[in-house]
Order: sequence, then C-alpha cells, then structure tokens
Amino acid sequence: MTAPRYDVIAIGNAIVDVMAPASDELVDELGMTKGGMTLVDADGAKELYSAMGPAKEISGGSAANTLAGLSAMGAQCAFVGQVADDQLGNVFAHDIRAVGIDFDTAPREGEPPTARCLIFVTPDGQRTMNTFLGASQFLPPEALDQEAIGGARILYLEGYLWDPEEPRAAMRAAIETAKAAGRKVAFTLSDAFVIDRHGDDFRALIADGLIDILFANKVELAAITGEDDFDAGIDALKDQVPVLVVTRSEDGAVCVTDGERSEVAAEPIDKVVDTTGAGDLFAAGFLFGYVRGEEPARCLRRGAIAAAEIISHYGARSEADLAKLMADKLG
Amino acid sequence: MTAPRYDVIAIGNAIVDVMAPASDELVDELGMTKGGMTLVDADGAKELYSAMGPAKEISGGSAANTLAGLSAMGAQCAFVGQVADDQLGNVFAHDIRAVGIDFDTAPREGEPPTARCLIFVTPDGQRTMNTFLGASQFLPPEALDQEAIGGARILYLEGYLWDPEEPRAAMRAAIETAKAAGRKVAFTLSDAFVIDRHGDDFRALIADGLIDILFANKVELAAITGEDDFDAGIDALKDQVPVLVVTRSEDGAVCVTDGERSEVAAEPIDKVVDTTGAGDLFAAGFLFGYVRGEEPARCLRRGAIAAAEIISHYGARSEADLAKLMADKLG
Repeated sequence: MTAPRYDVIAIGNAIVDVMAPASDELVDELGMTKGGMTLVDADGAKELYSAMGPAKEISGGSAANTLAGLSAMGAQCAFVGQVADDQLGNVFAHDIRAVGIDFDTAPREGEPPTARCLIFVTPDGQRTMNTFLGASQFLPPEALDQEAIGGARILYLEGYLWDPEEPRAAMRAAIETAKAAGRKVAFTLSDAFVIDRHGDDFRALIADGLIDILFANKVELAAITGEDDFDAGIDALKDQVPVLVVTRSEDGAVCVTDGERSEVAAEPIDKVVDTTGAGDLFAAGFLFGYVRGEEPARCLRRGAIAAAEIISHYGARSEADLAKLMADKLG
Repeated sequence: MTAPRYDVIAIGNAIVDVMAPASDELVDELGMTKGGMTLVDADGAKELYSAMGPAKEISGGSAANTLAGLSAMGAQCAFVGQVADDQLGNVFAHDIRAVGIDFDTAPREGEPPTARCLIFVTPDGQRTMNTFLGASQFLPPEALDQEAIGGARILYLEGYLWDPEEPRAAMRAAIETAKAAGRKVAFTLSDAFVIDRHGDDFRALIADGLIDILFANKVELAAITGEDDFDAGIDALKDQVPVLVVTRSEDGAVCVTDGERSEVAAEPIDKVVDTTGAGDLFAAGFLFGYVRGEEPARCLRRGAIAAAEIISHYGARSEADLAKLMADKLG
C-alpha cells in the first residue's frame, strides 16, 4: 500500500444553497416539514423560490461541506460530484477549489441545471430544506478516478446521493475500490427519508462489513435500527461498525469505537443562527482527528467545535479560520 | 399632477455581488486599489475570481441596494435595470421582487451574462470592488416606463451607470420625463472614477438645475468640486442643489437643504464587518425620511442607522428588519 495521496475523498451532491430567513407560518403554509429535507422537481423549486424572501447563495452539499471543513483544518481532500455547465456550477466549483480541494468531475452539458437547495431558516435557527437535484443525480460511475479513491485514507459517502440511480452505482463501485485498496469507508445516513427508501441497502452494507465509520443523528439512528430509545439504538449498531458516531443536537454527540463509548457535550454558543451544515461540520471535525489517529474523545470535541462555528452564521461553509479555532480551543 | 404611484423609482446596475474575505496582501498582489471600484472585462473577472477565496453570492447594485432598503422600511418602489436571461439574472430579479419592489425590465437574451461585482473584503471591513458590467451596460432607453417615471415622487439615478452609453441615454430621457412631470431627481455620484470620466456631464446637470438631491461621499465631493477641504467642497456645491447630502464614513454625514446645514454622527456599532453598501443604505434612510417630509436632521439619522446595519454583516442587502430598527431607534 503506497502512502495515501488524500486524507479524504468524498462523493456527494454538488449543490448551491439558496438561503433565506422565513417565519414558522410560511414554512407551515408551504406544507414543508420543519427541519427536514424534501426533494423537489424543477417546477416545485420555482414555486418555492417565488415564495421565498431575498436570499443568499452559498455553496453547499452535505459531503462537500464536510470536505470544505476538513480542508480548512488542513486535511488533503478530493471531491467527486456532478455540476452542470452553468453559472451555479461555476460557483460550486470555484468555492470548493478555493479551499484547496481537488475537484475534477467535468461539468455536464445541457439540462438539467446545477442542483440547488432552497433553505428556509426560521427564527429558531432551524433549517428546512427543499432540494432540486438537477445535474447532481446524473453523476456517472465513469466520473470516478479509481486511483484517487484507492489513494485516499478514507472514502466518504453521503446517504442523500444513494437515492438517484447513477450515483448509487458510482458509490458501490467506489466502495469496492476503496476496500480493495485497504482503505476505510465512511458513510453518513443524511436523512430519515433516505433510510425509509434505502434502509435495506444500508443495513446490508453494514452487515457485509463495508462501512468502517458511520455517521448518524438521533433521528436517523432510530430510523436505521427501529429503536426509538437512543441507547437501545446505539446498542443495536455498535457492534456492527468499527466506529459509530451519533449526534444529538444540543445534547452533544456519542461515539462508540470498538465497543468503547465516548461522549461530548455541545459546544456553547451565543445564538443559533442557522443549523444548516451542523452534522456535516461535526463529521469534518471528527474525521480530522480520526485521520490523525487522535483519541475518540478528542475527535468528538473537534466535531463539536466545528459544528458550533457553522450554526453561528448563515451557510454551511465555515466563516472562521477553523485551523486557528481548533488550535485556540484544543491547544 | 396625479397622486404618485411610487415613492422612488431607480435606474441602476443590476448586479450580483460575489463576496469573499481577503487579506490586505492579496488586494495588493492583485494590483487593486483598496476601497475603490474598478471595471473589469470578462477575462479580468475570470482571473480575479480564480484568485478569490470561497465566496457568497448576494444581490447588489448601488441603486438597487438603496431601493431594497427603502422598500424594507415601507416605501413603494420600482427598479429599472438590465439582467441577462441566466441564473444570476434570475437571482437578482428574485431578490429585488422578494422585498416588494416592482421590477419589469425584461431580461436580455444571449451574451454577455448578468453583471457581477467581485468584492474582496479585508479584515478592516473595507471592500474593494471589481465590476464586470455584463448585460447591465446594455439597458436600452426603450426599457423605461415613462408613466412609471412620471408617477414617482423621486427618480433616483446611480452615477456608476452613467459610464456605458445606452443607459446614459436612458437616464437623460428619464430626467426629462421626471422633470416634465414635476418630480424630483436624486443622483448619487457613486465613485471618483465616474467623476473623472463624466464630471463635466454631472456639473452641467447640476448647473441646469436638473438635480434636486445630490448624494456624495467626501472623496466624490472633492472630485466634483476640485476642493480638497471638506467644508470648501460643501460650500462650492451647496447653492447649486436644493438638497446636498455628503457622507464621511466614521465621521457621520452632512446635509445642506436650502442653505441650511445639518449634521449627524455615525451610528456606533460593535464591529465593521463589510462596508459594502454603506453609502447606498445611507441614501435609503435619508430618502425614506425625505419622502415623508421629515426634518433634515431626522433624515440624516435614518441614513446613519441604515448604514450602520449594513456594515455589521456581509452584503449590501439588509439582514435586520429595517422598519422595526427605525421604530426602535427613533420611536
């Protein structure tokens, strides 16, 4: 096994977030489930956009957000994801390369346009997402650079992208490549709706020993295990994956590594402005510690610190210097 | 004269701002004049974008920012400006309509794309702007709705847009329409470089009594009058326009109305994050008071409050509820 070229290579949705403040009443009126993610088609996206207030456009995408955080902390990263050859695709590509991430997936010509996620942020900081997947769902298996995947310590996969057919095939192929090269596979369950649709796939991947590091929040933990009780959910999964990381919002997070449980409290912040990207950045902090061989408790702390930064402002890409923030907080 | 349909109708650049933090060293290296605005062509914009860190896209444009502020305070407004039929054009149109502004200029087909302004924000909060005018410079005189212009209390014009030929012709026509309808014409000088190129035009407009309300900052005041001393500059202009408003950053602002001088201090804020839009929002606050017939001192205070809000965060569109902010501060 040659020395890894990357710390983490990720396959994910290539999305630009379109974010605006919204009242709870508006979220209700539009029939959205507050805090959740819903897929919408082009017409649905157009209709919701009309109902939205003045917005900001900030690059997003779950795995891409995680990588941006990792790269900001100093990790070597590569991203694979499909944009269209349009202005928003150009924005996405610029923003991910600007933090030093290798991104070589060629833009896709023609329709549909680059994916966008319309995010309504209520006064409590909760985000309600409506995703138009656009070009993102057409990531072909040929887009994968097998050498790059084999040359990364960790292959990181986003559950959201398991839904469309082509990227699912691409991710299955990537898992094989990573495993054959003796690398670790990390997976984030993304959202309960993905588990509703593909839970059997995920459980099979786990049972087959193909997932080394699994990220979930408490809702996803319940959905994948069928256990409503948090600890019962942890117990149901902890022996099936070498590293299990479960976040639970203001109650911090839990990690079980080879049967050993560690916990971290949420990092205190003044005001939750926008929770978009909280889980993504938690994963970034955790993985940064993990690839450096740190103790689980320290990995968790890094996750909590990165998550606290992201929810203190609009958007799922860090505004603070994460490397400096980690150094200030952890020494 | 029928009752005005609008408080303010504005003609301006239809621009999306692309904003990123930058070091002073980077601004130096790229040969930019810190704090200024430079026009760039498509290649120049591409090159600068490559050198830029991860960015946020937020609708901008000087006069459009002013209108967005006015509309947020409760004024009735209409905007005239040229976007292309592309994604950024769609973003601009959405954001301006979402605050309740009428915007009926048809998007322009084909190249060039919608205008964008690459804004490098240094740690002191100062913004350095590089504008690719794109479709914005092709606003044709036919785009003007003469009835709407004649039906607005104030026609507000942005000096930046005096530079390209077609919009300049459109603005000259609009001034005639407004004057014939007995309306007021407000003009912002925008930047010293515009005065370098078109100062004679501006001085002629002023001498001909076509400008009722003139906005400038201290640098522009010096450029238009040739007087380096602030008070000498004020004296040189004050008898030529009925209302003269000059901002001077942290030193507040001065207004001379029919020979009578009023002043306001800058509104104190915790931290200057990004000065983009400070002048635009000052104008918004001032005009809001003006159209309601308030005393100059109160108009100035509104300007100072709106400017303080905009420089406390990224972007030139207000994040706070300006109407509520005004009520809280002014009763």
